Amino acid sequence: MRVLLTNDDGIFSKGIEALYEALNAVHEVFVVAPETEQSAVGHAITFLDPLRVKPVKRNGRFFGHACSGTPADCVKLAVRELVKPLPDVVVSGINLGANVGINVLYSGTVSAATEGALLGLPAVAVSIDSFQPTDFRAAADIVMQVVDAIGANGLPPGVSLNINVPNMHPEGIRGVRVTHQGELRLQESYDRRVDPRNREYYWLTSQLVGTEENLDADARALNEGFISITPIQHDLTAHGMLAELRAWGLEREYERR
Amino acid sequence: MRVLLTNDDGIFSKGIEALYEALNAVHEVFVVAPETEQSAVGHAITFLDPLRVKPVKRNGRFFGHACSGTPADCVKLAVRELVKPLPDVVVSGINLGANVGINVLYSGTVSAATEGALLGLPAVAVSIDSFQPTDFRAAADIVMQVVDAIGANGLPPGVSLNINVPNMHPEGIRGVRVTHQGELRLQESYDRRVDPRNREYYWLTSQLVGTEENLDADARALNEGFISITPIQHDLTAHGMLAELRAWGLEREYERR
Repeated sequence: MRVLLTNDDGIFSKGIEALYEALNAVHEVFVVAPETEQSAVGHAITFLDPLRVKPVKRNGRFFGHACSGTPADCVKLAVRELVKPLPDVVVSGINLGANVGINVLYSGTVSAATEGALLGLPAVAVSIDSFQPTDFRAAADIVMQVVDAIGANGLPPGVSLNINVPNMHPEGIRGVRVTHQGELRLQESYDRRVDPRNREYYWLTSQLVGTEENLDADARALNEGFISITPIQHDLTAHGMLAELRAWGLEREYERR
Repeated sequence: MRVLLTNDDGIFSKGIEALYEALNAVHEVFVVAPETEQSAVGHAITFLDPLRVKPVKRNGRFFGHACSGTPADCVKLAVRELVKPLPDVVVSGINLGANVGINVLYSGTVSAATEGALLGLPAVAVSIDSFQPTDFRAAADIVMQVVDAIGANGLPPGVSLNINVPNMHPEGIRGVRVTHQGELRLQESYDRRVDPRNREYYWLTSQLVGTEENLDADARALNEGFISITPIQHDLTAHGMLAELRAWGLEREYERR
């Protein structure tokens, strides 16, 4: 298959290299990834500034294109301009740090996959539950399986898959669960500091807040040693709220005036 | 009520000024908004850089705080640090340009409201269907009504309201519809150019693609001259895909090794 590979930690990260090695052994891989780390950019796209693209080598060979934009920009630009004919699947990762619960919303990694789905391509995001991972094999292995499964089954339009992998050797992993996005939250605060010129600034700090989660929630699967696979889409409508909101009486239609 | 007011076009935009004037006549308003335009930043947040805050005056009086971050950063910082006691409601807008269909995903305006909801506060985003709006009255008026309705009814945890208003005089508006996020897409392409130093760059261009929409889809309501109100939440799970994905046979649990 023709695989478009991107990430949000940047084209020089170890995560994308590990995934490239695994995918490139079997598939045709095109790398278009951010020049610099783009963590927590969510689904940001760039249109107030132009985008620039530079070729990047690894070990003396062409590796891919570094793009000045966000992960979503990379996918858009790759699909619209750089990769022809179109790729068969978009893969984003391996991200350092889990993208479960509320983190899904902030994640550049997941947004790259969502962007692929919006452009009509099946797409996969993959993250490992550590900022200093020791072993990418389990993550690369599940991506290979999922890409094959997508080749066999397809994905409905607009749907992508968000995979999270425990940070352990493949032998330590307990299995694979299909999950929903859970309610894991970050407890955030700001560290207020003063710079050398005596001006205030704020750093965001955050820590995970454990919540009671269902067995099929993403963070719980991960914490119990399972690989988590969550199907993701882009409809943010609170469908359960539509009827209540209609009961508020704000809806109306004026007579033609 | 105590209202936290933000936007994504920046603290100096006309849209936030119009909303401030309307809200401030009745409520206590706290403005924390981006220093510069932050369109299409989605749910980006800032933690690789510190945030800075500056007081901003309008007409010689204190207007609010300009923040160096994104709309979601503004809401987080306001709620965690700047506005005490907590606001009763978060209002984001008036954005120049509709946030309907797929634009909801890219929108900094909507993400500010979503961030408010994540922090446990009822929240409202409001956008007008023009980049050069001529009349903010209808938008300000519906926000006042919705804020009152939230005061009376509350909003379930995690839910915010995304309001879009046609660009017309209040008398021209046909009514108000409760809608779901529709499938409106952008047809995007890149304009490839060469800079004065003969290096390539790409500008993103986009145009709306009309789609067949249900009567209760956001873009259709707007196009037919109605104000659209969509309840929004943050669960991106493709719930309809869970069963199919389980049937792929990827799920498994290994024996304890």
